[in-house]
Amino acid sequence: MMNEIKIFSPATVANVACGFDVLGFCLDNVGDDMVIRKVDKKGIKITHIEGFDLPYEAEQNVAGVSALAMYDTLDIDFGFEIEIYKNIKPGSGIGSSAASAVGSVFGMNELLGRPFNKTQLTEFAIKGEALASKCEHADNLAPAMFGGFTLVKGIKPLQILEIPSPDDLFATIIHPQIEIKTSESRAVLPKEVSLSDAIAQWSNVGSLIHALHTSDYNLIKDSLHDVIIEPHRSKLIPHYEEVKNSMLNAGALGACISGSGPSIFSLCKGEETAKKVAGAIKNVYNSTGIDFDIHVSKINTKGIKILN
Amino acid sequence: MMNEIKIFSPATVANVACGFDVLGFCLDNVGDDMVIRKVDKKGIKITHIEGFDLPYEAEQNVAGVSALAMYDTLDIDFGFEIEIYKNIKPGSGIGSSAASAVGSVFGMNELLGRPFNKTQLTEFAIKGEALASKCEHADNLAPAMFGGFTLVKGIKPLQILEIPSPDDLFATIIHPQIEIKTSESRAVLPKEVSLSDAIAQWSNVGSLIHALHTSDYNLIKDSLHDVIIEPHRSKLIPHYEEVKNSMLNAGALGACISGSGPSIFSLCKGEETAKKVAGAIKNVYNSTGIDFDIHVSKINTKGIKILN
Repeated sequence: MMNEIKIFSPATVANVACGFDVLGFCLDNVGDDMVIRKVDKKGIKITHIEGFDLPYEAEQNVAGVSALAMYDTLDIDFGFEIEIYKNIKPGSGIGSSAASAVGSVFGMNELLGRPFNKTQLTEFAIKGEALASKCEHADNLAPAMFGGFTLVKGIKPLQILEIPSPDDLFATIIHPQIEIKTSESRAVLPKEVSLSDAIAQWSNVGSLIHALHTSDYNLIKDSLHDVIIEPHRSKLIPHYEEVKNSMLNAGALGACISGSGPSIFSLCKGEETAKKVAGAIKNVYNSTGIDFDIHVSKINTKGIKILN
Repeated sequence: MMNEIKIFSPATVANVACGFDVLGFCLDNVGDDMVIRKVDKKGIKITHIEGFDLPYEAEQNVAGVSALAMYDTLDIDFGFEIEIYKNIKPGSGIGSSAASAVGSVFGMNELLGRPFNKTQLTEFAIKGEALASKCEHADNLAPAMFGGFTLVKGIKPLQILEIPSPDDLFATIIHPQIEIKTSESRAVLPKEVSLSDAIAQWSNVGSLIHALHTSDYNLIKDSLHDVIIEPHRSKLIPHYEEVKNSMLNAGALGACISGSGPSIFSLCKGEETAKKVAGAIKNVYNSTGIDFDIHVSKINTKGIKILN
């Protein structure tokens, strides 16, 4: 029987333009590695963390909290150790805490012979995510767990829809290394929106889901708009308009804030265009004096996976 | 060459629950018959109207106005006569004016050898619809012209998406014979909505489109909610809550206001359930003293059609 597993837990983009609070997608080559190990000693122990400075106490660590939420439902006489090799910077807006929260429960589930389905695992991961974001949501967890595009239809009960995506869809993402406080990104959200803006938004959500089902890249382009959140939150991100315009000018189908920022994502048809977009935004940010990372990734339709 | 054509122009449901202002569907066995005839005399002439008392002057008649909008773009030395056999009561909320507006241009286009596509025909029909509803919209025109479920993504330019629908989907509709003034149904619309309601609405729009693509009846049921418009407009319709509850209790997947009312529609899986729903709402309305019609219809995936 397998006693140790190494997994890749992917980065994700939530709040996909018009789909604020419901729509996310999964990245392919950006993410954390984790090792989960079955051990004699009962309980959950985090034994190694690399990449960023995060707490070792399971109760204070996102991966630990989700692991404990799952562990507490089990009647077993052994425990688990967790090693975290973190590549996704916390606070980057591409699902760093979600990757940790999903990773531990996915790995434990594999070692246990898969007693839980992916929706149940996401329920446990929500507890971990809540430690980081102070509220229960699955915007990044769902795409990390299921892959592809996901629509979180509801939290109680948790209902996750897997939306198909076209074969040749890529994302280009820039992560400006600045900090946006969660409190600040929440404070700028409007409490009320105009009915006409709301209609424009749900028209775009409907057409984006249709476009993903029909692999209609032009319609993806026509639908990737956010008339409600972007006007407020984009002000918190330096050079947002310049970056967005350079993405669109380089051929991106659309661009918007990833999660609650500061990362900015674009979706592109084909890797060549995605790389062209990467070059364009690099030019914009090189002159700003702000450090940044750029990722080019195919949409990852599998989600979290076991490494050899 | 064909000089006369008889067509069936179907009734339609607009403002499908969460899809206010964008989503509609087409009925199968409820609609108007029209005869369009090529004649030597130039211009558009309405020669016969049956069923309801409507103006014969082309410029004052919805079918005439859309016909003229199309006719004025043509360089031809003949004209058209239009006969209208109206079954859909004006003001019923199931697309009476849309059926007329679509019918004349569809018929003329057939007699001309189809110089225009359906989107172009809908553009002409918008001019006729505007005479009746005082604004340019395609909420009922699109499903009447294309059939099935349609999402009107935009008006300028007109962009209509054809959404697939499950084979066994039926609608049951009650039309209480009362009048709701357009001004009144507009006046009760909220100008602003809460962000959380708007998010709930676009989550439902996204999941409804996904459910229609995947023939997922349970998800259709979970998605057929309107948290924004229904609470306001339902007050204008007598016994609305009773009717809706009886529809749901009889097994309907969901129920909401058709168009801007007073008709109420439900969607059902299977004809048997749709008929059961019809029986249940008949019981509710029989005791009210208000006249009513009830329609049970399969979703019409073809739209407007030529009769033999």
